[in-house]
Amino acid sequence: MQIHWDRFLTEKVAKRLEPSLIGEMMMLVKEREAISFTAGEPSADLYPLEELGKSFERAFGEPSLFAYYPHNGGLLELRRWIADWMKGDGLAPRSLTEEEILLTNGSQEGIHLLAEAFIAEGDAIVVESPTYPEALLTFRRQGARFLSVPVDRDGIVPEALERVLAEAGPVKFIYTIVNFQNPSGYTTTDERKAQVLALARRYDTVIIEDDPYRHLRYEGAPQGSYFALDGEGGRVIYLGSFSKIVVPGIRVGWMALPPELADKMTELRVSCEISLPALTQYALWDFLKDRDLPHYLSTLRGAYRSRRDALAEALRGQCGPLGLEIDVPQGGFFLWGRIPWVKDMVAFARYAIEEERIGFIPGRIFFADETEGADTIRFSFAKVDGDLAREGARRLARAMTSYRSALNN
Amino acid sequence: MQIHWDRFLTEKVAKRLEPSLIGEMMMLVKEREAISFTAGEPSADLYPLEELGKSFERAFGEPSLFAYYPHNGGLLELRRWIADWMKGDGLAPRSLTEEEILLTNGSQEGIHLLAEAFIAEGDAIVVESPTYPEALLTFRRQGARFLSVPVDRDGIVPEALERVLAEAGPVKFIYTIVNFQNPSGYTTTDERKAQVLALARRYDTVIIEDDPYRHLRYEGAPQGSYFALDGEGGRVIYLGSFSKIVVPGIRVGWMALPPELADKMTELRVSCEISLPALTQYALWDFLKDRDLPHYLSTLRGAYRSRRDALAEALRGQCGPLGLEIDVPQGGFFLWGRIPWVKDMVAFARYAIEEERIGFIPGRIFFADETEGADTIRFSFAKVDGDLAREGARRLARAMTSYRSALNN
Repeated sequence: MQIHWDRFLTEKVAKRLEPSLIGEMMMLVKEREAISFTAGEPSADLYPLEELGKSFERAFGEPSLFAYYPHNGGLLELRRWIADWMKGDGLAPRSLTEEEILLTNGSQEGIHLLAEAFIAEGDAIVVESPTYPEALLTFRRQGARFLSVPVDRDGIVPEALERVLAEAGPVKFIYTIVNFQNPSGYTTTDERKAQVLALARRYDTVIIEDDPYRHLRYEGAPQGSYFALDGEGGRVIYLGSFSKIVVPGIRVGWMALPPELADKMTELRVSCEISLPALTQYALWDFLKDRDLPHYLSTLRGAYRSRRDALAEALRGQCGPLGLEIDVPQGGFFLWGRIPWVKDMVAFARYAIEEERIGFIPGRIFFADETEGADTIRFSFAKVDGDLAREGARRLARAMTSYRSALNN
Repeated sequence: MQIHWDRFLTEKVAKRLEPSLIGEMMMLVKEREAISFTAGEPSADLYPLEELGKSFERAFGEPSLFAYYPHNGGLLELRRWIADWMKGDGLAPRSLTEEEILLTNGSQEGIHLLAEAFIAEGDAIVVESPTYPEALLTFRRQGARFLSVPVDRDGIVPEALERVLAEAGPVKFIYTIVNFQNPSGYTTTDERKAQVLALARRYDTVIIEDDPYRHLRYEGAPQGSYFALDGEGGRVIYLGSFSKIVVPGIRVGWMALPPELADKMTELRVSCEISLPALTQYALWDFLKDRDLPHYLSTLRGAYRSRRDALAEALRGQCGPLGLEIDVPQGGFFLWGRIPWVKDMVAFARYAIEEERIGFIPGRIFFADETEGADTIRFSFAKVDGDLAREGARRLARAMTSYRSALNN
């Protein structure tokens, strides 16, 4: 008897998940051996593999790490280190302890656990327009109703947020990427944070502050966090990640939680997977604890700053005259732009890979409302050196030229 | 303004999760420095750390493992190795390929992903009585309605299963632990498998076959799997784990899926955490691929067989006369028993740790229906050598004696 899987699968899995368009673009790039401006991941030549290898060796001296780790929130030493680091950077209230830190398999797992904890079918949440598509995927899976609020160069637009909150009824949370946002590159100023937090309090909702790019600031003054600004208000959950500043492949991120939520989220973790590998958490802690972190981060920043500048210059020089407009961010990995005469960037992205072997991400996927952003485009400079930037920009210019001419015929 | 978290949290997280009683018992054991018959985990002195360390070193020679791994189902080499291994052992149809293998963060993550995929609020599922409590936790979280079916020494009782299926209406799946079941130690015979699979087909439901202990058989003939028996019927999902035969702390398990489900489950994985650490998957593959696995497993089996025998003998000698009845399984980690005169084993377990510093797991938590199993008890022998077994049994006998005398006063 043939099995009709539709009868077995939940609606959220059968109907609401879909293959990642970013994944498709990255696979196409690989198949066509194209130059890639696609991946929001750090550059392999900047991985601190030698030092990390030594830390793994030391972890192997701790056989207890190979058992089930007794603390389901993750390695105590690393959680303590993170709590101290956040407080030292002014990102957390002085009261933060390791009890409120939950280690995650990358930030995405934090997003997943929060989606499970907060979103019941039909619940309203606020997301930025544009925002990170894998967060949209996870929230959509849980049945979220999206309220999109635009961001400008200073972050969420408070007037737009207030209009939405005033009309929406109860809102579970506001999901915001505060530094060098993916994809826009915009950073929320502290002034804006105060306004948004005041609105969150007035309308009794929660802020999820996703902050993977904070330490990759190339110029300008660092901004604070919602998590610290809220103090002991307990209204903010902070998501951090080591994927962009150490390596993504060991999959370590964290959540900093209001004390009232810490036990519940740990119980949820147990129901999802018992615990995560303490071995990698220990190796990461060992790597971090004796490091001159300001020096280490400064080296990373120098490398990415040059890449940002090279790609921005190449794209402006080659593609600006053809109608490409780009924003240059103060940090992070992304240039965000538009080509106003391109009405379907997904089609153009496939065309550019096929015809000129140049890959980038069509911006439409960053919008909860899929009618928005049809002419937008995201470039990642993280893995692109100067030569690649120039050659890629030339290819993109050729693709724009031939695509426009095909459109006009 | 005080935050009322009840308004924000989903019912499944706010109301259906609870701290693990096994976790509580293990913590109590640690605090009281008690002898522990609690933990269903392998013995640290049997971890192959030296060889695994070399495999991790070799993994460090592969920098691509530190990036986001491009295949979200997990390391292709390990998935291929698992598919070949399962086929070689007769556990899978010849058509199985790595495409149908999804690596997981331990089997628990497989249970979680399946719960997400299959269980909508109020859906009926069949579970064994007794069964693994963390699976119950995850299924309950998703809103499952439990249909408990008893197991005997040959596995699920088909007559009882049929009565339940005939009355229940649509059932999403049957969750079964087929070898040396946790907690009962019972193994489903191939004859029973044929009967249960026939019922699953007749009533159009799915079988989730959880099999972490298969390779720890100490005597008797190995049994086949539902996954192979079903052939290309596509009605069975198999969960495997390296936690019991290599180490639990690196958190690697897998799911073998019907081909129609593989893509969907991978998309679900992306929404939960993008991917898992390819580094640990590579190290495990490197460890497995050149190993004389029959020899390696035979050494493990020899060690655990002695422990099983020592604990069974000690408990029978010391506690049998006081009313303890135990079953000795052909494999796995657990002795399952009853003390008919104990009406609240949870209370007795706390008493025994406090008064005599001996820990074990009250059996009640292994039943979906909490009125069942009040007098049952689970002992793990995996980490218990002969001396500990004898001393632990003496302590348990003292605890039984004083507890009974307190009950009678």
